[in-house]
Amino acid sequence: MQDALLALTKYWTDRGCMIVQPFNTEVGAGTLNPATILRVLGPEPWKVAYVEPSVRPDDARYGENPNRLQTHTQFQVVLKPDPGNPQELFLESLTALGIDIHAHDVRFVEDNWANPATGSWGLGWEVWLDGLEITQFTYFQQAGGMSLDPVSVEITYGVERIMMALQGVSHFKEIAYAPGISYGEAFGQAEYEMSRYYLDDADVEGQKRLFEEYATEARRMLDARLPVPAHTYVLRCSHTFNVLDARGAVSTTERAKAFGRMRGLAREVAQLWAERRTELEHPLGVADLPALAPVPTEFPIVEGERRLLFELGTEELPPSEVTKTADALRKALTEKLAATRLGHGAVTTFATPRRVIALVDAVQPAEPDAQRVVRGPKKAAAFDADGNVTKAAAGFARGQGVDVSELHDIDVDGVQYVGVTKADHGRGALEVLSGVLAEVVTGLRSDKNMRWNDPKLSFTRSVRWLVALLGDQPVPLSVGSLAAGRVTRVHRVAAQPEIEIASADAYLELLREHGIEADADVRRTRILADASRLAATVDGVVDAGGESALVDQIVNLVEEPTAVLGGFSADYLSLPPEILTTVMRKHQRYLPVRDANGGLLPHFVAVANGSIDEATVRAGNEAVLRARYEDAAFFWRADLETTPEAMKAELDKLAFEERLGSMAQRAQRIGAIALALAETAGLGADDLVTLRRAAELAKFDLGSQMVVELTSLAGTMAREYARRAGETEAVAQALFDMELPRSAGDPTPVTTAGALLALADRFDLLAGLFAVGATPTGSSDPFGLRRAAAGVVAILRDHPELRAITLPAGLSAAAGQIVAQGIEVPDESLAEMADFTVRRYEQQLLDQGSDPHQVAAVLFLANAPVVADETLAELKRQTGSEAFAELVAGLQRTRRIVPAGTDASYDAEKLTEPAELTLHQTVLKVREALGSGPYGLADFIAAASILTGPVTAFFEEILVMAEDQDLRAARLGLLATIRDLAAPVLDWQALV
Amino acid sequence: MQDALLALTKYWTDRGCMIVQPFNTEVGAGTLNPATILRVLGPEPWKVAYVEPSVRPDDARYGENPNRLQTHTQFQVVLKPDPGNPQELFLESLTALGIDIHAHDVRFVEDNWANPATGSWGLGWEVWLDGLEITQFTYFQQAGGMSLDPVSVEITYGVERIMMALQGVSHFKEIAYAPGISYGEAFGQAEYEMSRYYLDDADVEGQKRLFEEYATEARRMLDARLPVPAHTYVLRCSHTFNVLDARGAVSTTERAKAFGRMRGLAREVAQLWAERRTELEHPLGVADLPALAPVPTEFPIVEGERRLLFELGTEELPPSEVTKTADALRKALTEKLAATRLGHGAVTTFATPRRVIALVDAVQPAEPDAQRVVRGPKKAAAFDADGNVTKAAAGFARGQGVDVSELHDIDVDGVQYVGVTKADHGRGALEVLSGVLAEVVTGLRSDKNMRWNDPKLSFTRSVRWLVALLGDQPVPLSVGSLAAGRVTRVHRVAAQPEIEIASADAYLELLREHGIEADADVRRTRILADASRLAATVDGVVDAGGESALVDQIVNLVEEPTAVLGGFSADYLSLPPEILTTVMRKHQRYLPVRDANGGLLPHFVAVANGSIDEATVRAGNEAVLRARYEDAAFFWRADLETTPEAMKAELDKLAFEERLGSMAQRAQRIGAIALALAETAGLGADDLVTLRRAAELAKFDLGSQMVVELTSLAGTMAREYARRAGETEAVAQALFDMELPRSAGDPTPVTTAGALLALADRFDLLAGLFAVGATPTGSSDPFGLRRAAAGVVAILRDHPELRAITLPAGLSAAAGQIVAQGIEVPDESLAEMADFTVRRYEQQLLDQGSDPHQVAAVLFLANAPVVADETLAELKRQTGSEAFAELVAGLQRTRRIVPAGTDASYDAEKLTEPAELTLHQTVLKVREALGSGPYGLADFIAAASILTGPVTAFFEEILVMAEDQDLRAARLGLLATIRDLAAPVLDWQALV
Repeated sequence: MQDALLALTKYWTDRGCMIVQPFNTEVGAGTLNPATILRVLGPEPWKVAYVEPSVRPDDARYGENPNRLQTHTQFQVVLKPDPGNPQELFLESLTALGIDIHAHDVRFVEDNWANPATGSWGLGWEVWLDGLEITQFTYFQQAGGMSLDPVSVEITYGVERIMMALQGVSHFKEIAYAPGISYGEAFGQAEYEMSRYYLDDADVEGQKRLFEEYATEARRMLDARLPVPAHTYVLRCSHTFNVLDARGAVSTTERAKAFGRMRGLAREVAQLWAERRTELEHPLGVADLPALAPVPTEFPIVEGERRLLFELGTEELPPSEVTKTADALRKALTEKLAATRLGHGAVTTFATPRRVIALVDAVQPAEPDAQRVVRGPKKAAAFDADGNVTKAAAGFARGQGVDVSELHDIDVDGVQYVGVTKADHGRGALEVLSGVLAEVVTGLRSDKNMRWNDPKLSFTRSVRWLVALLGDQPVPLSVGSLAAGRVTRVHRVAAQPEIEIASADAYLELLREHGIEADADVRRTRILADASRLAATVDGVVDAGGESALVDQIVNLVEEPTAVLGGFSADYLSLPPEILTTVMRKHQRYLPVRDANGGLLPHFVAVANGSIDEATVRAGNEAVLRARYEDAAFFWRADLETTPEAMKAELDKLAFEERLGSMAQRAQRIGAIALALAETAGLGADDLVTLRRAAELAKFDLGSQMVVELTSLAGTMAREYARRAGETEAVAQALFDMELPRSAGDPTPVTTAGALLALADRFDLLAGLFAVGATPTGSSDPFGLRRAAAGVVAILRDHPELRAITLPAGLSAAAGQIVAQGIEVPDESLAEMADFTVRRYEQQLLDQGSDPHQVAAVLFLANAPVVADETLAELKRQTGSEAFAELVAGLQRTRRIVPAGTDASYDAEKLTEPAELTLHQTVLKVREALGSGPYGLADFIAAASILTGPVTAFFEEILVMAEDQDLRAARLGLLATIRDLAAPVLDWQALV
Repeated sequence: MQDALLALTKYWTDRGCMIVQPFNTEVGAGTLNPATILRVLGPEPWKVAYVEPSVRPDDARYGENPNRLQTHTQFQVVLKPDPGNPQELFLESLTALGIDIHAHDVRFVEDNWANPATGSWGLGWEVWLDGLEITQFTYFQQAGGMSLDPVSVEITYGVERIMMALQGVSHFKEIAYAPGISYGEAFGQAEYEMSRYYLDDADVEGQKRLFEEYATEARRMLDARLPVPAHTYVLRCSHTFNVLDARGAVSTTERAKAFGRMRGLAREVAQLWAERRTELEHPLGVADLPALAPVPTEFPIVEGERRLLFELGTEELPPSEVTKTADALRKALTEKLAATRLGHGAVTTFATPRRVIALVDAVQPAEPDAQRVVRGPKKAAAFDADGNVTKAAAGFARGQGVDVSELHDIDVDGVQYVGVTKADHGRGALEVLSGVLAEVVTGLRSDKNMRWNDPKLSFTRSVRWLVALLGDQPVPLSVGSLAAGRVTRVHRVAAQPEIEIASADAYLELLREHGIEADADVRRTRILADASRLAATVDGVVDAGGESALVDQIVNLVEEPTAVLGGFSADYLSLPPEILTTVMRKHQRYLPVRDANGGLLPHFVAVANGSIDEATVRAGNEAVLRARYEDAAFFWRADLETTPEAMKAELDKLAFEERLGSMAQRAQRIGAIALALAETAGLGADDLVTLRRAAELAKFDLGSQMVVELTSLAGTMAREYARRAGETEAVAQALFDMELPRSAGDPTPVTTAGALLALADRFDLLAGLFAVGATPTGSSDPFGLRRAAAGVVAILRDHPELRAITLPAGLSAAAGQIVAQGIEVPDESLAEMADFTVRRYEQQLLDQGSDPHQVAAVLFLANAPVVADETLAELKRQTGSEAFAELVAGLQRTRRIVPAGTDASYDAEKLTEPAELTLHQTVLKVREALGSGPYGLADFIAAASILTGPVTAFFEEILVMAEDQDLRAARLGLLATIRDLAAPVLDWQALV
């Protein structure tokens, strides 16, 4: 292992990095060493590499867990500014470590880093070696609340991980640390003793006092304008806090307070450091970024129709951005081309993790010439009484560069103006495309954008090259520091990673020759086919169904999908299958393999990128999975040794939100809300017994080790552990149900008790976070309130038995619990939440393909989504019914003629005409048919269909606006009565 | 610089060292990292190397001092067990660093390391590169109060030092740290800010609280049997203490308390660690030491007289041990040979730092045969009445392996025994020498001995090889793991460092051929001649006079003296010359060069070892001296900006001894004692004024930066600073004087005021330390009490005007001050001190060549050494005087005849005989001549010479022991009167 550290040190010094030493105060990560967290600030260049033994008391396991250490070794590299090829440098460093990057599957998998405690974040990846996360790779965007300019590249190698993989050992203690000495022999005792210290023996009160001392001293040093010692004390605060946390000694309030304090100090340290460096006039100078590429000025003439190829080369895009960016590119290109006169055929786009491609067929060689009329002053103002040109008109002509004699008349909507007609010469295709493509690139944005070393660009990940070819002709194009050409990049490990493209037509095939499939559909088909074929070799079926999101991810994680079948010990099949599949899918992006009955087989399909050594990659992935399953098995056993009640007690220590308190408080609120809702819904006695017990245990599994590790198993583990603890199946299922639905399209609870808990959970989330002002904004929805609201709607829609629970009712019940905690919930806030939830309902309906008019027509009923659903269903049923169309027409006519505010009462005595009397009688019948209870659209149609004829007759024969005021009032009242009878069941207005 | 760290890391890993990381808590030295201080304990092997940024708050200088940093970089190597060639490995590592060890002068200069605070110590060297200390090299003997077995070799490189030398820069900030980045650019701000923190801004009360927290937690962890976290907290204690110290916030009491606490904790940590490792069954195994060399059993026969060569090859001996070891070898060899029958000629020994040599001329080929008589039972018991052999005699014969017929008679002191005569065959020379030499080697001891990797040997430094040749014949010899041969080692950098010796006769010349001079006298002569020649080239004279101790050192620091003349900027000559010469001599072992008038020239002579590149070595030594002078100039300027009073105030912070308090308290006591002594001595008014002021300022310069750095300048700097502060010359001189004499042979104070202070200083030292029981034992005299006592004597001897100050008077005055501080000083203790001091006086006299009888005769007067001196002088004057001899004879006869206890009074009326009457009259005259005051030996002789005749006559004519009791009493009384008149001036008894 020490050879590896030396190799890395040597490698990075050879690339100009300075080497510094680990910090002499415990840090949780190499990032916190001042050589990173302070040096990334300000304009000075900084290239550094160092080893950092990172101390995480919470990871202490007495040296027993194979993968977890209280002190693990990071190798940290900071490159400031981004050198332009940090990924390539990183890959070379793996070679320096002796890793054959041609044999292994090395991938950059989206992983963004944020440390809100210090106001720091960055975008980047975790680097996978055959599925094992070996490195964190980040473009550091902000630190200490300050935007970084230039941006730094931070590369953090997890050295023990890499070593275990390279040496093929399954416990960190077995790593050969030095010749003849294993990791365990060298550090085993320290690992054990420090674990004892952190988990069992550290003096809680003493550590609290230390925290105070450290924070105070940090404060003093900030006041003395000494950021270096201040930072040291902030680090000590942080470590001390971590010790307290590992000892389980931090209450929610203390946690919030401590975090607030550390956050404030850390930000001040950063600011002070930056100020001090400015005062010192930046001793290391100011970093240079690449110059802007020269703006093209010459555009050769091309002839004939040609195909345009545009390729935007990027570093690995987040899978979710791949398809979106292709779509955005198509849209932007189409729109921007439409704003020119350049003729062209179909616009097609493709995307892989490393490139976004547009192909535009039949691009014309140039825009056609055109004429353009420019409007001048009104004719009346252009000539005086004598017919002479006025100053205004002369000025206009001068401004347009023409003689007044060239002014002519223009008629605009019947008004006469003077104007000029100018010839607009069509630009050549290259000129047009140059401008359009530059705008397209500059305009590209994703949900989360970052900067790298480009002086102008900003995108989800670095853009590193551009190709623009019109047929075989390069399009002169420059954006930021990049100039387009005809060179593309293929696999980084290819013998020749850069390839010239002869022409746009040859492009897709050229990529295929180099193993890259641009078409995501082809990739998907290949992945599924290969996976199925491999699964069949072990008599299995690949489980990709319902997992389209996962397949989507895989498709967008590779340019050349290479499926590999791997296996694991059948022993692990004794664990609940959800654990196994969660690990496979969420953590590893593997496809599970099942037998004919749906049972899991001890196999999986991993999809690597490019041509790899299959045996190597299989072995690597199998080792990773084994380690993860070993971890899971450890948690499983540990959890089974405790009880649901004991786990629930752990919730006290889990912070939920600063003002809303701990997870225990939240669980208590959820229980109370669920019971309140049960009353509203009139829950049956059996269900009530179930609900009461489930409410007591609500969320207990968040206190289990398994769920702390694999959060997505919340609910799943609750059910497992509850069953094993002897709870009834109904209670176990309710606890499982309460976490449903986890995402859009996920099943909703099957039990009513579970549905009530699930609703209560989401109502609490909405009410609580709206109350404290943590409402979602734009793309930011950290607490998942959109999902919560959508969940409420989905549950209510699936549970008609709960129709009594309207959104306002549920939210009020939740608000009551929040208020009981001393937090105000204003009425507007409640209305806002309800409206927010209704919007989710609307979205669901539209997403399901419902007619927007019909949706609009039922939306006012959405406080009870079941009612709105039923109404919409009826509406759909009636679609195409002539009778209904007539009824609607009649009602619309009725509604149109009745002024707003007309009361739905009338003096029937005033009515004398037969048509009006008939209608009056019919209305009475309809009212009687509808009865005194609530009625829905179907009821209404059934009852009100008899109105169609009388209404038609009424309008044909009766002049509503009689001169006799009383008569007019009676007729209007009659119509208003019809209007009001119809009103509760549909927003008729919206139907139009 | 980072390349250097990498090169070292690589070098040591290639030699099997494990690499660990710096510790994540501040340490003052790499030794304190658990990878050293804990791992050296116990039997497990351990080879480790690491970088350790060592934090010493006290060295903080805001980054301004060119050589001093609050954090400096150590590169630490621990080799356990000693691999047998650690020096060679170390030298190779210098080559790996790019240092040309053939061009440079690399030397191992004695430097022992002890950290009483943790009960740790070791012996070794500082390694010099052209006079620059670049590395600490230690054989670690004890840690945490536990003896180390096996012993570890600890190598600590001072990386900034090495870099400054290699890069030829004069300020650490100018070191090129990484390509394009200087040390100052990289770490300048941290250096400044942490200096600010340590020196100015750290919160004293907060740090005190932290100390308490840390100590408490360390205690808890010890109780929990977790040595690793306990050690971490001990280190935190230590660092926090250092911070407090740098802030000047540690009182003497607090320091003592803190040290006691840390010491106790550190020892417990070490013991607990060792216990835990034993419990863990020593996971790293148990280190192997080299096997014992096979004991020789075959000894070839040699013929003819031959010369014996015995060479003991060592690692660099301390200079003081070189000559001593040669002497010890000669003595041991001579004695042990004498105990054999092997004939031989002269035994000559030589020594250099790396070898101790014995040559024995004319060794006979074998011991002569001899006969040996073995005594049996008494003859009376050997034969029964019948003349038959008894059982006893038969048993004896059987025991001796002879027939009873071989028993014969033996006369022992007139008693008859039976016995046998056995032939004792002489052993061959090789056999005899093998045994003798083995005993000699095993018996070698120095003042301080250490162990290395030899399973049996112990000596001042490692013994690495043995040569034993009798003529050309190897002597079979093994000691410990070593077997003697004919291979010696020459300079380590020689092309062929190991050389075969053909025969003992060729040896010295062979060494010379390889540049090594075995004869210290030759080396000395060459050094002085070369130095003089070089000094002459700059019209100077080398200043070696009076510095024989320095030249002795130099002679014993090199095997091949190579004098190099260097220079320094004449600007530094503006500093007091004592500063310059102190730095040259004490720190660098350079010989100063003076002009004809004794003024310093800006030159020096350094003496390198072996053939070096003169320009390189000169440049290196000049750079070192420049840096040291720069430091000194810095202190000088800083001191001149303050005042003696301000410096004196600093003494509060200097601890003297735990119970005796701070240096300020000691200075106060000294002043008080001096004033008391002044009264005793009846000091004149002018002197009293001087003394009063000097007493106020006593020791103030210990608070100066210069003396803190260069302690031997105490007194010298006091005089300089006092003068510049406007004190009178008398006061300045008294302050200078009070530190005199610094060593045996050093001048004593010239002023009486200075003499009084100097006496007070030393009386205080004696009284104080005897009172607290810190009396010297054997070779241990940490407070220099022997030197203090010798100083008291020397001063009193040189200052007859202070004759009233006897030792008891002075010690009582000092004891009075100690008692005032609440410390008891028992009478026996006072007597012991006086006796201890008298012993020093006796030693001085004997060392001066005085006749031991005469010395013994005056010693009873030594409480007033001046009186004893005068007496001795008179005694010497009288030596050879016949009159005096007769007087002495008379007095001796008188003393002999008078029984002890006889009263010196008599009834003169009883005397009747002429001879006794004459004597009586003469005694009356003598008494009258001596008068009533005190008289000395000269007075006595002058007055008593008239006694000779009468005494002779008395004894001829008078029978003292008359039968008449009264008469006898009168006669004895008369003689007793003579005895008592003589008694005060001399111990006549001792004269015999």
